[in-house]
Amino acid sequence: MSPLAAALAALPPPLPFVFIAGMTDSDSTLDEFRQFRERMNKVIFNAGNLTINRFFALDGRAYEAGTLGVKTKEMLGLVSSMVLRCDDCVTYHVIRCKEAGATDEELMEVFAVGLVVGGSIVIPHLRRAVARLEEMKGMK
Amino acid sequence: MSPLAAALAALPPPLPFVFIAGMTDSDSTLDEFRQFRERMNKVIFNAGNLTINRFFALDGRAYEAGTLGVKTKEMLGLVSSMVLRCDDCVTYHVIRCKEAGATDEELMEVFAVGLVVGGSIVIPHLRRAVARLEEMKGMK
Amino acid sequence: MSPLAAALAALPPPLPFVFIAGMTDSDSTLDEFRQFRERMNKVIFNAGNLTINRFFALDGRAYEAGTLGVKTKEMLGLVSSMVLRCDDCVTYHVIRCKEAGATDEELMEVFAVGLVVGGSIVIPHLRRAVARLEEMKGMK
Amino acid sequence: MSPLAAALAALPPPLPFVFIAGMTDSDSTLDEFRQFRERMNKVIFNAGNLTINRFFALDGRAYEAGTLGVKTKEMLGLVSSMVLRCDDCVTYHVIRCKEAGATDEELMEVFAVGLVVGGSIVIPHLRRAVARLEEMKGMK
Amino acid sequence: MSPLAAALAALPPPLPFVFIAGMTDSDSTLDEFRQFRERMNKVIFNAGNLTINRFFALDGRAYEAGTLGVKTKEMLGLVSSMVLRCDDCVTYHVIRCKEAGATDEELMEVFAVGLVVGGSIVIPHLRRAVARLEEMKGMK
Amino acid sequence: MSPLAAALAALPPPLPFVFIAGMTDSDSTLDEFRQFRERMNKVIFNAGNLTINRFFALDGRAYEAGTLGVKTKEMLGLVSSMVLRCDDCVTYHVIRCKEAGATDEELMEVFAVGLVVGGSIVIPHLRRAVARLEEMKGMK
Repeated sequence: MSPLAAALAALPPPLPFVFIAGMTDSDSTLDEFRQFRERMNKVIFNAGNLTINRFFALDGRAYEAGTLGVKTKEMLGLVSSMVLRCDDCVTYHVIRCKEAGATDEELMEVFAVGLVVGGSIVIPHLRRAVARLEEMKGMK
Repeated sequence: MSPLAAALAALPPPLPFVFIAGMTDSDSTLDEFRQFRERMNKVIFNAGNLTINRFFALDGRAYEAGTLGVKTKEMLGLVSSMVLRCDDCVTYHVIRCKEAGATDEELMEVFAVGLVVGGSIVIPHLRRAVARLEEMKGMK
Repeated sequence: MSPLAAALAALPPPLPFVFIAGMTDSDSTLDEFRQFRERMNKVIFNAGNLTINRFFALDGRAYEAGTLGVKTKEMLGLVSSMVLRCDDCVTYHVIRCKEAGATDEELMEVFAVGLVVGGSIVIPHLRRAVARLEEMKGMK
Repeated sequence: MSPLAAALAALPPPLPFVFIAGMTDSDSTLDEFRQFRERMNKVIFNAGNLTINRFFALDGRAYEAGTLGVKTKEMLGLVSSMVLRCDDCVTYHVIRCKEAGATDEELMEVFAVGLVVGGSIVIPHLRRAVARLEEMKGMK
Repeated sequence: MSPLAAALAALPPPLPFVFIAGMTDSDSTLDEFRQFRERMNKVIFNAGNLTINRFFALDGRAYEAGTLGVKTKEMLGLVSSMVLRCDDCVTYHVIRCKEAGATDEELMEVFAVGLVVGGSIVIPHLRRAVARLEEMKGMK
Repeated sequence: MSPLAAALAALPPPLPFVFIAGMTDSDSTLDEFRQFRERMNKVIFNAGNLTINRFFALDGRAYEAGTLGVKTKEMLGLVSSMVLRCDDCVTYHVIRCKEAGATDEELMEVFAVGLVVGGSIVIPHLRRAVARLEEMKGMK
């Protein structure tokens, strides 16, 4: 558990929102990332905007196996997230790629294409992606 | 007050800058966001670069009522910030939209357009925008 | 009719595809833009990819009246297209904004927000957007 | 041959550069695209900037077979080009994907991921990508 | 004069707008680029939107000599335009850099930084930038 | 030392990775930024992907003195990072610019070009860049 998570855990419920607001992006552990993601997805879903809810459903289906398998599609999602430089998206697709059986070596080749296409501006996101990979290994 | 803010408050003045540097983006409470924003705007203004100072003045005026009202212009600023994926800008325009009388339902419709135009890469920023909305409710 | 369209019209059918490929973006008249758009949308639809077809349906619905009216939503789509610098998208939303009753003065205010948010990099797209507005007037 | 290419072919050598400048992006046939590409690559190479020349060499190697095969890597390059909305890059990788054995159905699935990740702003580039696919079929 | 410009010149005044709309971006000669630019800037200025007009004034002043000279500032504008992949902006700053005395070798070094920072996605814009340089030489 | 760094320093080795994952971007002190950067660069290098390692080597060389000096090239890298809105890249090039002898006034002029080119969306990154400059002064 991170110091921040520990501090949060020690607080009496209900958890004040200001703390949870910080649980985003490159600053949180994978567990905190997942919690924030799930919590906010629920809030968004409950807001009941039909367009947004349909988009989320469509997003979920875009990576289902078709002519291309799940692993390939998740690697496509990963490289897209990398060149568009979205840390949260990269984290999400790294997790999914690993679940779909991608090896570290394969992921490095995905990152290599993203780096050449997107340039040095991609490097900080590459560092954080590799940090997430390391973090995942530490959790096993 | 957040744990970080509390730690800062306990420090003897003058506050070392390295701590304040961390008070940015998705990681800070709205109060910390405002303090960092105001402090740095002052430092930038005092640097005396004419182009930068004129840009800031122009930026302030771009959302004044014209043929379109303030609320509409702020929603235009919000959706632009969303598709360009700038959390700080989104936070700023969410605050301004609320001040101009936008309802949560209207903001969700702004987000819906931003999501369809900008794609799933916008989702993490949507989560953080909705988190800011929640945070604002908690402050009332 | 443009010289290119005239040259095409003088050709015996079937029209070779290579010519039609050129009918895109900033280079074509509004009529050519519409023809290319409709023709390719049909080809894409017929390809039968479920995710793509659902996205197109969702895109069509995102601008329907809700709490915000069609004109406001189209202006949101327009400013998003402007800051993301997509000429075809700008052309499309300029047409839709005019159909929804937006005045030239209102569109200039939308462009003004887009310009300040997106910077001088937006200027060439602003020029082309205004050129489309002029073209539409010439067609009445 | 396109009317523009025919007009060029009728001109006495040396071909004035101003005409060739137009042979770019979405406006040219695949043949013109290739000619412009090869001609300018040669000019760039001859300029002798070491960083640029090394980058071009690295770019060429990034898609060579490794743990992932050429087809997968080219699809990664294609989806990256799609979400970054670069028509020339899309055209290039569509050609390479077809050479590596990708089917139309597979390419549509690559486009589907790009569309969901990148949003409706990607649609005009999707239309042009599919137009290139059609053009390639017409050339067989 | 390009074939398109010749076709336009043969038309009776007033020149229909739809033709001029095509005179943009990578498809036009430098003369056509300048004419379209000047014509549309005038239309935009006459629309009388204060924010837009002030932005244009600010844009003009941003490259005036300060602590850094005009040539350095124009090179900064050029590399920014390159990594943001705006052909018209690149063309504009290439012209201004040459006027400010930048050599071809210096421009290639600017392009090299832009290429490494922005990645292979920048290459088509690099080709067009070098094409503009060639075109300028042919005009002397 | 920041509170987070102090908390980390008090932990028994080996340092759990989850904590280090947080040491990125706008949230860390310059020292933490450097440590994370160096640590992850080593992990990436050791992964042995040839394309990635060559890109890193090329990136290092792109800013070496040529016809343009190091200071000018670093300012080109800085303005590119600013308009592409990459905080880590901005931090890196601010450090390098200062090492190459750039004055604060020169850096503000670089920022001014970046701001006008990239628009108000650049402002949060400008604030963080100036915060880094302040932090560097506090370290002397």
